Amino acid sequence: MTEPTTQKPYLFKTIGIIGVGLLGGSIAAAVRQRNLSETILGAGRNPARLRAAQHSGLLDRGTTNIAETSARSDLIIVCTPVNHIVQFIRTVAKNSRPGTIITDVGSTKQKICEALYGSLPEGVTFVASHPLAGSEKAGYEFADPNLFEGRPCVITPDDSLPVEAVARIKQFWEALGMHVLETSPQKHDQILAETSHLPHVVASALAMTLTEENRKFTSTGFRDTTRIAAGDPALWIEILLNNREEVVNSIDRYTHSLQRLRDAIINQDENQLRQLLEDGKKNQDALNSSRKQ
Amino acid sequence: MTEPTTQKPYLFKTIGIIGVGLLGGSIAAAVRQRNLSETILGAGRNPARLRAAQHSGLLDRGTTNIAETSARSDLIIVCTPVNHIVQFIRTVAKNSRPGTIITDVGSTKQKICEALYGSLPEGVTFVASHPLAGSEKAGYEFADPNLFEGRPCVITPDDSLPVEAVARIKQFWEALGMHVLETSPQKHDQILAETSHLPHVVASALAMTLTEENRKFTSTGFRDTTRIAAGDPALWIEILLNNREEVVNSIDRYTHSLQRLRDAIINQDENQLRQLLEDGKKNQDALNSSRKQ
Repeated sequence: MTEPTTQKPYLFKTIGIIGVGLLGGSIAAAVRQRNLSETILGAGRNPARLRAAQHSGLLDRGTTNIAETSARSDLIIVCTPVNHIVQFIRTVAKNSRPGTIITDVGSTKQKICEALYGSLPEGVTFVASHPLAGSEKAGYEFADPNLFEGRPCVITPDDSLPVEAVARIKQFWEALGMHVLETSPQKHDQILAETSHLPHVVASALAMTLTEENRKFTSTGFRDTTRIAAGDPALWIEILLNNREEVVNSIDRYTHSLQRLRDAIINQDENQLRQLLEDGKKNQDALNSSRKQ
Repeated sequence: MTEPTTQKPYLFKTIGIIGVGLLGGSIAAAVRQRNLSETILGAGRNPARLRAAQHSGLLDRGTTNIAETSARSDLIIVCTPVNHIVQFIRTVAKNSRPGTIITDVGSTKQKICEALYGSLPEGVTFVASHPLAGSEKAGYEFADPNLFEGRPCVITPDDSLPVEAVARIKQFWEALGMHVLETSPQKHDQILAETSHLPHVVASALAMTLTEENRKFTSTGFRDTTRIAAGDPALWIEILLNNREEVVNSIDRYTHSLQRLRDAIINQDENQLRQLLEDGKKNQDALNSSRKQ
């Protein structure tokens, strides 16, 4: 485990991941593939699964001991469901050495940052993150070292945080292939309600509407439009309720768009229908041209 | 061009395709790859593009002469936008030899079948089809010989049609790798409103709702959910207005699903939200397990 002298220095000597599921596992796989740390520790609740993740080579050590993992790590990434993030970060921070940086991957940011910024022990810094990468699959078995490549990661620091810690978190996500965007926690939740939480509600509503006897009459269009509805309901309940007001705002704006389309169809207003479909297509084309597929 | 004696007989000696875009071109490519006919003719409106499709090898001959193409073909597939299908099939039928079979790929069926069943010249049979395969891309350049593989094709014959012609159309789509479903034109339009037209409206409304400054905060979830919104507005205006009542019915049922999700979120009703998300997930999981990806 000695660092070869010819190699560039590790970004963080030891990285600890709390919650080794699809996202935590993918971070471990990406860190390993890119050789960003000497040691990768994983901690969580299920000893059998953590041992299995260690045996698979994804982790150097997998344990239920959060305190030990925290004490040994230079960077700790909390990858639990959103409702447990605050509590885990408090435990992690209490057990960390001074100089430790903590981040997370939570899909909402305002409540987490309100609870944690300015309230952690001296010398330990939490910088909130939200890598916009994921999958409807669950479990470290689906870990993908390239999951983050080319995707955005939003960080939501505030002015109280040490500039150096924010810079290192930015550097970490960039080392995973992400481009980092910075915004306030409040603005993050407002934007993500539109770009992530709303699509989940829209896809779920469509999947709910499909009658069982019509399943065999679907093709790729239906399946792509509803793909994310296969995500874990337990995770999404937390996200949607955490960001309740902004999500409801987005649903209402969406319902208005939908009603405009409905009106144009019922009124056989071809010009209006063309305008609306073209507005949507313009946005979609812009997404496809600005990103790789 | 002589048929080798060792080879199985062609399904149709000469196949004519009216409208050589993404779908017509993909049929030509699939017929060629599977060696289902000796000759593939293409006809349409744009001489330069038809010549180019001929030069590319997709067609044995590409021309604007619908009458000649009709007279030479044993099977004719009309792949134009839905609003032109009836008129083209009338022209094709008028110029066809007795025994010729005609089909189409239109996304709505009721108006087409009402106009054509029982009204074509003696000896020429039209059997309505809707292969559930497509792409948001347009143009024969994107022709894909495997576009139909594993997908459903709905045919909507009625009792007046010769059983033999219906069987041969069924055989044709099966030879392209599709599984054929049979239903009435009316039932087709009702089902497809839910499984195809509604998803387009849902995806377009979501794409319309995205604000330009938030585009960079989207990831794969948003992009997949809105993929089909990149489809050609002109084609979709015709489909949505052709099937107006059933589409509006589907939008209303969908809006009800969406409002149930909204209510559960605003009331912080975790149990109800879990139930709804699980209903959607169950449908989505069923789609994913019953079909290849």
